[in-house]
Amino acid sequence: MESIQVKVQGVEYRITFGGDLPGWMGQALPGGGTATPFVLLLVDENVSELHGDRLHAAFEQLGVEVRGVQVPCGEATKSLEVYGRLCDQVLSLGPDRSTPLISCGGGVTGDAAGFVAATVLRGLPLYQVPTTTLAQADSGVGGKVGLNHPTGKNLLGTFYQPRAVFIDPAFTRTLEDRDFVAGLFEAVKMGLILDHRLHGWLVEHWDRLESRNEKDLVHALKESCRLKARVVELDEREKGPRRVLNFGHTVGHVLEHLSRGGLRHGEAVAWGMAAAAHLSVNGAGLEQEQARAIKSFIYRRVPRRPELPDRDAFLRLLARDKKRRGDAIDVVLLRSVGHTVINQNLAPETMWQAACDVIDEGQS
Amino acid sequence: MESIQVKVQGVEYRITFGGDLPGWMGQALPGGGTATPFVLLLVDENVSELHGDRLHAAFEQLGVEVRGVQVPCGEATKSLEVYGRLCDQVLSLGPDRSTPLISCGGGVTGDAAGFVAATVLRGLPLYQVPTTTLAQADSGVGGKVGLNHPTGKNLLGTFYQPRAVFIDPAFTRTLEDRDFVAGLFEAVKMGLILDHRLHGWLVEHWDRLESRNEKDLVHALKESCRLKARVVELDEREKGPRRVLNFGHTVGHVLEHLSRGGLRHGEAVAWGMAAAAHLSVNGAGLEQEQARAIKSFIYRRVPRRPELPDRDAFLRLLARDKKRRGDAIDVVLLRSVGHTVINQNLAPETMWQAACDVIDEGQS
Repeated sequence: MESIQVKVQGVEYRITFGGDLPGWMGQALPGGGTATPFVLLLVDENVSELHGDRLHAAFEQLGVEVRGVQVPCGEATKSLEVYGRLCDQVLSLGPDRSTPLISCGGGVTGDAAGFVAATVLRGLPLYQVPTTTLAQADSGVGGKVGLNHPTGKNLLGTFYQPRAVFIDPAFTRTLEDRDFVAGLFEAVKMGLILDHRLHGWLVEHWDRLESRNEKDLVHALKESCRLKARVVELDEREKGPRRVLNFGHTVGHVLEHLSRGGLRHGEAVAWGMAAAAHLSVNGAGLEQEQARAIKSFIYRRVPRRPELPDRDAFLRLLARDKKRRGDAIDVVLLRSVGHTVINQNLAPETMWQAACDVIDEGQS
Repeated sequence: MESIQVKVQGVEYRITFGGDLPGWMGQALPGGGTATPFVLLLVDENVSELHGDRLHAAFEQLGVEVRGVQVPCGEATKSLEVYGRLCDQVLSLGPDRSTPLISCGGGVTGDAAGFVAATVLRGLPLYQVPTTTLAQADSGVGGKVGLNHPTGKNLLGTFYQPRAVFIDPAFTRTLEDRDFVAGLFEAVKMGLILDHRLHGWLVEHWDRLESRNEKDLVHALKESCRLKARVVELDEREKGPRRVLNFGHTVGHVLEHLSRGGLRHGEAVAWGMAAAAHLSVNGAGLEQEQARAIKSFIYRRVPRRPELPDRDAFLRLLARDKKRRGDAIDVVLLRSVGHTVINQNLAPETMWQAACDVIDEGQS
């Protein structure tokens, strides 16, 4: 199995890519999973239904007792209420501080189960098995875990590094086409901000990716994770270089929120990236032609388009951005593909206008 | 002002002892508190009533805008519900990730407000101003923040280091005698486990401490913090040496829980230490005479005695101990004053018997 090594704030862990789930567990868990009386599995309820047999067969093969907790699907899982219920269930299973907690599911499961792992008994050893293209390309690396607050996404949480991550393309086979494709835009983000070769490769191989060629998928995910790991290693707590990962997310989060579930996260980020590319021409000196190429790739490939956002609602949500500092919002723009600039002088109005412009352009 | 420097997992911070609150704020907060548009103050409601004028005068003197949130008194504050409400209030005040959060109050405030600071926007810079002898001797150092769960104390939380700590004996003037004295037993713990000279000094100066001599109080607190800092520096996440800080706490937590609010934390720990000293004679080779001296000091000085614990309830609570590993409980015992031994072979029944023995002895 292929793997990459990540080191964040003194903690080292391995991200493994492949299809041998029991092989990975045997390597990653202490004593092959038998060093503790049992292992906790926090698994998305859909994943449990679709892949439960395979998961349980892996534990059986290793002779490991597993105690499972089903994590409800959907963004509502990242609430304090569901967090409380998950903690109740986990604590009732009798873990001690050495009990491994395996989180298995998409971004929501990773965030919520990760926050449970970070906080129950002040921290259980966390193993992440992301199951969506979105989570595999992005949220599996970096240690961000947390919950939403009624006033905004991801407003509560912490940084908590896993002990190991396993990225298995087999989990993505049961994704709907739309979800499968939307998640790939997190890989597009990595290319745009950090590596023009990856960007070129993704544009060239997009048809094969969309038709779910797993060899290509693993390549895209691995390159994406490798780039993200490099940034996170420099900056675990998002004070400096890590901010570039926010490319497309400032506008993206607002569009996602306004769509009330109508847009997938990856789709919202794609439109946010289109807006950022649009703004980068004047705001960061991106060549007009490059901006056009980036935008038209997104227009052609992103599964869904948002509605034009209401000005006031857009500006109100923008003002709540978690990464705001005082009144300034750091907006990540592109100088060229693979090179970013942080711009703090963009008026919120200008960002709203850019979002409208690209949604307009994309519809034509 | 006197101070000590603490370094935990690459984070360095200073614990300052003294009475010059504005002087400390001016030094500790970025730009003397003016580097951000405002500062958050999470303050225990009693402390706010008794010391609010002094706190606000300090901010005024520095020209700092402060936005306050009152933290309810009592252990119920460490619930998910109150945590949610505190997060609501903090987020409604519009902080960004650089907004300093000052936590001002006893152990409950430190734990709850600290967990808010650790998790809102994935972490605000935390400044701790503990106001009780208990919090000043113990919980101000080490970075433990968190909440209770219906099934046990401190079962949810994380490790989050403050940027600076200020220990001002003036806050303790408004404590009731019983609380003032109970808190000092955390300093007694530090002497017993780590420094026989501190222990001797505390025994010798106890009358002066009880009569609230502030020079002696600062000495006791500073030595206590210095010792704790040394242990925590070695072991931020409580895997190895830090376990010695649990001396008296395994039995203490059970007695505290069973008393349903009848015992202060410091009192419960004192009885837990008496039980541990009692067990140390056979379990760690502590001289009979030393054990007797430790126990009789506690019997004479601890403000309140618990009732004899019910066997089944005691054993049930003990089985839930957070620091349990599988079926073994690591119990910290004394080989001599200042030297500890970890014993994993004590039967829960034996611990219950020891608790009963010392409560019996202490009553005669």
